[in-house]
Amino acid sequence: MQPYIDFVMELDRLKAVTRKVKPTGLDRYENSAEHSWQIALLAAALAPLADAPVDIDRVIRMLLVHDIGEIDTGDTIVFAEGGWEERKAAEQAAVTRIFGHLPDGGGDGFLELWREFEAAETPEARFANAVDRAMPALLNLANEGQSWRENGISYARVVARIGPPIEAGCPALWAYMVPRLVEARDRGWFGA
Amino acid sequence: MQPYIDFVMELDRLKAVTRKVKPTGLDRYENSAEHSWQIALLAAALAPLADAPVDIDRVIRMLLVHDIGEIDTGDTIVFAEGGWEERKAAEQAAVTRIFGHLPDGGGDGFLELWREFEAAETPEARFANAVDRAMPALLNLANEGQSWRENGISYARVVARIGPPIEAGCPALWAYMVPRLVEARDRGWFGA
Repeated sequence: MQPYIDFVMELDRLKAVTRKVKPTGLDRYENSAEHSWQIALLAAALAPLADAPVDIDRVIRMLLVHDIGEIDTGDTIVFAEGGWEERKAAEQAAVTRIFGHLPDGGGDGFLELWREFEAAETPEARFANAVDRAMPALLNLANEGQSWRENGISYARVVARIGPPIEAGCPALWAYMVPRLVEARDRGWFGA
Repeated sequence: MQPYIDFVMELDRLKAVTRKVKPTGLDRYENSAEHSWQIALLAAALAPLADAPVDIDRVIRMLLVHDIGEIDTGDTIVFAEGGWEERKAAEQAAVTRIFGHLPDGGGDGFLELWREFEAAETPEARFANAVDRAMPALLNLANEGQSWRENGISYARVVARIGPPIEAGCPALWAYMVPRLVEARDRGWFGA
């Protein structure tokens, strides 16, 4: 039993990894654990609107593990330039170590799920990536662009970075977001 | 699309519902969103040790939704006496309202999953309840009994309240915890 306990106590550290956006109504930054919970449920609700039919249970498990590598590396804003490959290598080392606590070396296929999400090639991974990219923008749309303004992220950069993956995995979600992002730009909710 | 967005923005409020235990190494209380994430993964890892074979994907979805009623009611410590039925009725009203945002009136069977967890009768619900009850105690065992001491919860009360559901859903987990709870008592990590 001890390996399972070691595993779950490692997971506890993801609650300390903070992101750039604040939950609505709270004066603190979101952490990657609560973020993972929220997008797993958003995906479950949105599943009928995925670009291609998906095994939603695999999507959910993928989203629950997708940020675990940050336990060692911390969160990196999706708009960061450079150093991406080194960071992903460090995250892969982290998940290999953390899932390695489990007797079968990877639990319920956790490591494979993490890799599948990163590759973003299967319908499940594309849909999971779409939901993951959309969520902070949805929070910013409810938050007067708090993290965009704080980090000097422009409208053009947001659209270029999150548009393609969201449209690829969940076109209806991107269609919903486009006019709202334009409206946010007109209201001055972006940086620089 | 708007109903899905309304749903996920309601979910955001669970990040503001604080529990009694603190994540390891952090000087703040855990919230119910990050808690739900953690136990979903603990369940996924522990599934082979459930008391009876379980559909682990249903367990995971159950754990992701099991605390959503707290969005309207707040968290109640499992050791609270009295008022339980009223509280559960209020939580049921909350989840009915929140899942009611979704077009099919309950998403991916969310309301049924919530009810199944509460009834704690199916193998999946018993296992989910075991993991849910175990997690705060595991954190307390790593935390010198922080929430037990802060809330004056005795060893006898903990064992009486969490022992039966954990043993019913995951006997191996309870067998692991018993000597550690005794050791915690001997170290003075309980209240009253």
